[in-house]
Amino acid sequence: MKDLNKNLSNAKSSSSTTTGWKVGSSTMAKTTFNPIRNILETMDLAPNPKKEMISLSIGDPTVFGNLKPSQVIIDAVSASVQSGKNNGYGPSTGFVPARKAVAEHVSVPGAEIDENDVILCSGCSCALDLCISALANPGQNIMVPRPGFPLYTTLAKGLGIETKEYDLIPEQNWEVDLTHMESQIDQNTVAILVNNPSNPCGSVFNKDHLKKILAIAERHYLPIIADEIYDYFVFPGQEYIPIASLTSSVPVLSCGGLTKRFLVPGWRMGWITIHDRNSVFAAEVRKGLQCLSQRIIGSNTIVQGALPTILKNTPKAFFDDTIDVIQKNAELAFSKLSTIPGLKPVMPSGAMYMMVGIDRSIFPEFENDLEIVETMVKEQSVFCLPGKCFNIKDYVRIVLTVPGESMIEACDRIAEFCHKHAKYSSSIPKGLMA
Amino acid sequence: MKDLNKNLSNAKSSSSTTTGWKVGSSTMAKTTFNPIRNILETMDLAPNPKKEMISLSIGDPTVFGNLKPSQVIIDAVSASVQSGKNNGYGPSTGFVPARKAVAEHVSVPGAEIDENDVILCSGCSCALDLCISALANPGQNIMVPRPGFPLYTTLAKGLGIETKEYDLIPEQNWEVDLTHMESQIDQNTVAILVNNPSNPCGSVFNKDHLKKILAIAERHYLPIIADEIYDYFVFPGQEYIPIASLTSSVPVLSCGGLTKRFLVPGWRMGWITIHDRNSVFAAEVRKGLQCLSQRIIGSNTIVQGALPTILKNTPKAFFDDTIDVIQKNAELAFSKLSTIPGLKPVMPSGAMYMMVGIDRSIFPEFENDLEIVETMVKEQSVFCLPGKCFNIKDYVRIVLTVPGESMIEACDRIAEFCHKHAKYSSSIPKGLMA
Ligand SMILES: Cc1ncc(COP(=O)(O)O)c(C=O)c1O
Ligand SMILES: Cc1ncc(COP(=O)(O)O)c(C=O)c1O
Repeated sequence: MKDLNKNLSNAKSSSSTTTGWKVGSSTMAKTTFNPIRNILETMDLAPNPKKEMISLSIGDPTVFGNLKPSQVIIDAVSASVQSGKNNGYGPSTGFVPARKAVAEHVSVPGAEIDENDVILCSGCSCALDLCISALANPGQNIMVPRPGFPLYTTLAKGLGIETKEYDLIPEQNWEVDLTHMESQIDQNTVAILVNNPSNPCGSVFNKDHLKKILAIAERHYLPIIADEIYDYFVFPGQEYIPIASLTSSVPVLSCGGLTKRFLVPGWRMGWITIHDRNSVFAAEVRKGLQCLSQRIIGSNTIVQGALPTILKNTPKAFFDDTIDVIQKNAELAFSKLSTIPGLKPVMPSGAMYMMVGIDRSIFPEFENDLEIVETMVKEQSVFCLPGKCFNIKDYVRIVLTVPGESMIEACDRIAEFCHKHAKYSSSIPKGLMA
Repeated sequence: MKDLNKNLSNAKSSSSTTTGWKVGSSTMAKTTFNPIRNILETMDLAPNPKKEMISLSIGDPTVFGNLKPSQVIIDAVSASVQSGKNNGYGPSTGFVPARKAVAEHVSVPGAEIDENDVILCSGCSCALDLCISALANPGQNIMVPRPGFPLYTTLAKGLGIETKEYDLIPEQNWEVDLTHMESQIDQNTVAILVNNPSNPCGSVFNKDHLKKILAIAERHYLPIIADEIYDYFVFPGQEYIPIASLTSSVPVLSCGGLTKRFLVPGWRMGWITIHDRNSVFAAEVRKGLQCLSQRIIGSNTIVQGALPTILKNTPKAFFDDTIDVIQKNAELAFSKLSTIPGLKPVMPSGAMYMMVGIDRSIFPEFENDLEIVETMVKEQSVFCLPGKCFNIKDYVRIVLTVPGESMIEACDRIAEFCHKHAKYSSSIPKGLMA
């Protein structure tokens, strides 16, 4: 009884420092901050009521209704749920047939993997979350591209992990500035994240360039986290090469999923594939990933049950049609925006985005790309994502998954906006530019 | 160029400390350890080849095939995917109609919530993960029940958060030892986790007891994380009371989902409902939860699309039938196991488990409950989860969702096992006990 009282008074004295309800959120909650989502979910964007809104902002290819998933995969999900076989818990890494299907999907000759090298996740975001949290401790850092998809930093920061940016070079089709990349690696660097094909750039790295990145990883003994969610999502004539297929020494965790190319972001079906011909991950990382996958016990089993059919039977024509829409939009937007004073679009080779550079000397009334974006919404009801979302200044990112007419209309409105706001230096007669 | 060389040599000198490939996993990966899953996925349990295995171990009501989800919810999912409306990204907290349906599902008169108080998650596990990570920093602690579901500690430990156990009292239907609970609260305690109905105990707290727990929370200004995944999953005559309905001052994050009562664990549909009539979470915690939900962008949208139908149209008879199976098994197992020397089953009131105490003085050849479980698998092909999984000694947990015949057969084999291994003290003649 004495002991008990002692404990009780301990408790009381400690909580007596609390004089009322003051419940704060954790540092992790405070430092988990996703700029894109935050803009979309909390920004009060007031479009021009006289013009219908055209949103070129969100990387969701389904929002316009012009791009729909293949009926094959819809029916595969119906069949999966009706079978009654996919309602129970799967292993936290996913059902074996589903993992086998992913292993086949990502294997390339000479770099085959099997179902034990696959972890199914709740979307590619979750795959990235597991990879980052399996490899890095608070205070350590991961190299990420600039411009780049902001989720990497969101995920890392929330765990006290730093990101260090390596630059991409717009003039070289957004290839990595290799010298800059290598210069940024320090003793706390634990991995290099490579996103290919790229969001936001739409760039696709060639074999030679990927090998140069691998050489840096090899020199510094750094594993690669490959964000390959846009795998094979490239324009005709372009080649997608999985980075893991080019190395037998550098261990690679590749993150992918159905989200983009299959046009089903909401299904939350992503995966990690482990490429480790050198057995570097055998000691700890494999087990670490498996343990981390047990936190939330994997992804939806209905989709898992459909995954073999989805990956094997989706017709090639479906992918070709999607790419065709995107490529046409890319060419259209590129040719239109290239003629507008102050804009420098960079032609993509894949994925579903285009970066458009803004010469702010031509638009002196705006402080930054964010203001340009907001004003463009207000006046033209066209919403692009500001470069700020991707850690780069003086760019906006446009998505290329809109219907063709909307793409034309959007470009025309952007042109009107730019012509209205462009201020030409007196040395160049206005007539020459317009 | 000079600067560049300097950077390069920095990088080199740092990585020169690494002489080869040594890639370890993070502390988070190393400390995320789920005992149940680890036992199931890594244990090499060799059953007696002459007896068919009866697994009373895993909390997946679908594994035996006797309990199936309602056709209503299967069809709702088919309709959802065929509609083509639920393929895109939802808000990271979930589609509004789905959140509305959850708000209605969990609201009780006088304690209504709306869609803004709901966050859909990838299973209840993910809901718990978000709640724990939103409230606690490394070094802080959360009170959890003992015996209790091991995931709480798994989730917390991985983030450097401690758990402090409060005891449940088997002799009082596993009610909380309130004195012990209060004695364990210290200045680093940030929340009390209450699991009702309970896994592994199958206990259901009454109003009076829940109020006493709330009084402790109130005295110490501690919010409650309520794991209510077994909500309304109680035997006839028992009452499930959401803890949040009994307080207007203590803020409650309740975690629930479809997993158990709807018999679809693989679907990964869980939720957090925020009950905060006192607006304690308004300052930070709500925003924190929302930000954390953006890490993996919510749960499968096909199931979200079906959620209003699932929650409104699942026939009451479906739930009654499930409970009936479980209650019959509970009564059967209780009456059979009560007569076995050395066993002390505790009759549950809900959920789908029963705890069975083991008097180890009767089984001196075994060091602990783990050895008993392993030997029972080897000899009788009956697999129960050792109390160790739930942080308690000298108990095993059995699941009650098996077909009736299997329950009988399992109990008979357990009886055979106990009779074989029981050693009676010389003062009690063996004949009297057998
Ligand atoms: C480069 C990149 N990686 C990962 C993701 C996340 O994919 P998921 O929706 O499968 O989580 C996205 C989505 O926009 C992306 O663009
Ligand atoms: C008490 C308790 N909470 C949470 C969970 C996890 O539920 P879910 O499968 O929805 O993540 C379980 C599953 O067994 C459980 O028993």
